[in-house]
Amino acid sequence: MPLSEFDTDTAISRLAEGAYTATATDRWSIGHVPNGGYTMAIALRALVEGMGRPDPLSVTAHFLSPAEPGPIGIDVEPVRAGRSAATGTVRLSQDGVERIRMLGSCHDLSGADALESHHDWGPPDLPPVEECRRGDGQTPGGMFASVAERFDMRVHPDHAGWARGAPTGRMEVAGWIRAADGRDPDTLLLPCVVDAFPPTAFELGVTGWVPTLELTLHVRARPAPGWLRCAVVSRHLSAGLVEEDAEVWDAEDRLVAMSRQISRLPRART
Amino acid sequence: MPLSEFDTDTAISRLAEGAYTATATDRWSIGHVPNGGYTMAIALRALVEGMGRPDPLSVTAHFLSPAEPGPIGIDVEPVRAGRSAATGTVRLSQDGVERIRMLGSCHDLSGADALESHHDWGPPDLPPVEECRRGDGQTPGGMFASVAERFDMRVHPDHAGWARGAPTGRMEVAGWIRAADGRDPDTLLLPCVVDAFPPTAFELGVTGWVPTLELTLHVRARPAPGWLRCAVVSRHLSAGLVEEDAEVWDAEDRLVAMSRQISRLPRART
Repeated sequence: MPLSEFDTDTAISRLAEGAYTATATDRWSIGHVPNGGYTMAIALRALVEGMGRPDPLSVTAHFLSPAEPGPIGIDVEPVRAGRSAATGTVRLSQDGVERIRMLGSCHDLSGADALESHHDWGPPDLPPVEECRRGDGQTPGGMFASVAERFDMRVHPDHAGWARGAPTGRMEVAGWIRAADGRDPDTLLLPCVVDAFPPTAFELGVTGWVPTLELTLHVRARPAPGWLRCAVVSRHLSAGLVEEDAEVWDAEDRLVAMSRQISRLPRART
Repeated sequence: MPLSEFDTDTAISRLAEGAYTATATDRWSIGHVPNGGYTMAIALRALVEGMGRPDPLSVTAHFLSPAEPGPIGIDVEPVRAGRSAATGTVRLSQDGVERIRMLGSCHDLSGADALESHHDWGPPDLPPVEECRRGDGQTPGGMFASVAERFDMRVHPDHAGWARGAPTGRMEVAGWIRAADGRDPDTLLLPCVVDAFPPTAFELGVTGWVPTLELTLHVRARPAPGWLRCAVVSRHLSAGLVEEDAEVWDAEDRLVAMSRQISRLPRART
C-alpha cells in the first residue's frame, strides 16, 4: 500500500541519536506558510520516535518563526522517562533558524478506554456530512490554504458565515473532517486536525493571517477509523490575543483530543 | 515595607548568567508536596528575569517529579528573543532531580488594555464575599493544604459540595481569591492563583492526591489591585485524565488569565 499524503509529508529520517531530518512540503500551507499543525505533526513524530512511546499525552509547541517549504533539521532531547510517560523537547530548524520549540510527554494509550469516563457534553451536534459545506481553502483575505485539499472538511452550515460574506459574530466553527486520501486517523494526525479549520476570528470580520503563538494538545484516545468531528470555539479576545479551544471526537463518539492555542490577531478588518 | 509572603517564598538569587537558586517552603503545599502553581511561580520568576520581559504571555510547565521543601536549582535557557515577545525554557531541580521543565514566552503587557476586546461571557457570577465559604485547607482525603492559608479564598456556596459531604457531581468551583497578607495581585502570582482552588474532581467523589501533569497559563492583562474572581471547570474525564480550565478576572472586570491543566486521577473514591 502506498504511503498516505500525511505519512509521506511528515516522514522523518534518523541521522543519529536524537537527530532527524524532514522536508516540509507546500501541500499543508496557509498562503505560502506551512500550517502550524502540520509542522507540529513533524515535530511530534520525532518526539514519539525519539522517546520510544507511541502516543502523545500533552504536547506544547511554541511557533518561533514562519516555516518555509524545504528541509528541516530536528533535534530531540529527552527530559525524563518515567514508568508510564516520557517527556522530551524537540527543536525544529531551517537554515539554522528555529521554527518550533516543543515540550511534550508521550505514553502508550492502548487500554485507556477501559478507564472511567464522565463528560459534560458529547460530540458536536452536526447535520449529516452531505448537508455540511465543503471547505475549499479560500480565506477572507484572498489567501489560498492548500491544507484544505489534504482534508475532506465539511463545516456546519450555520458556521463560517464569513464564507457567505456574513460573519456570524460567534467565534465558533464545527464540522466533519477526515484525510482526503482516506487515511485512517491516529494520534499523530491530531495536531494537524485541530489546526485545520479556518480561524474562528474570521467570524468577527478579521481577515488575513492569524499566526498561532502556542498550541497545546491533550490526547485522550486513539481514534477509531472513519470521520472525526471537530468543534473549535473562542470565548475571549483581548490584548490582541484570542484562544481557540478544539475538541475532536471519533466515529465511536469518543473524545480523542482537546487543544487550546493562542493566536495574535491582525489589525485588518473587513 | 516588608516583602509579602509570596515574594519572600518565591525569591530567586542569581548565581550566573541563566543560573539561579531558590528555596521552596512548606507554606504552599498540599500535604507534604509544594503545590505545582507555587513551584511554577518560582520558575516563572526566573523566566521573566532571565528573558528580561516583565509579563508572561503563554507559559507551559510539565511536572516531572514531586517537589520537596528545600533548595532549588534553576537554569534558564533563552530560545528566541523577538521584538515583542521572548521565549525560553526553565529547568527546576532539587538534588539533581528535575522537578519542572517549563517552556514559555514573556513580553510587556503595559498598553494591552487599549486593544479591541470581545467576550462571550464575563466574570463568574458570585454572591458577595461574605456569603461565600472560606477555604480552610482541608481535603476529602484528610490532607491539609497549607497553600489555603496563603490565600483568602471564598468559594461559591453552591460549589465544593464535597466539603459538606455531598459532592455535587458537577466539576466546577468558583470563588473570590486574594493573597492573605493583602499583597496586590500581579502577573507573577497567577500560576499560584489558577492552581489554588481544590481539584474539581473532588465533586465526583475523588479523594486524595490529584497530580497535575502539565499546566499552561495564558496571561491577558495585569490585574488591578483587590479581589480576583476565579472559575475552574472540567468538562471531560477520560483515560484517567481530567482537564481543569481556569479563568481569572480582576476587580475591574477584566479577564487577566486563562489556564488549562491536565491531571491524572487517583483510583480511590469516597
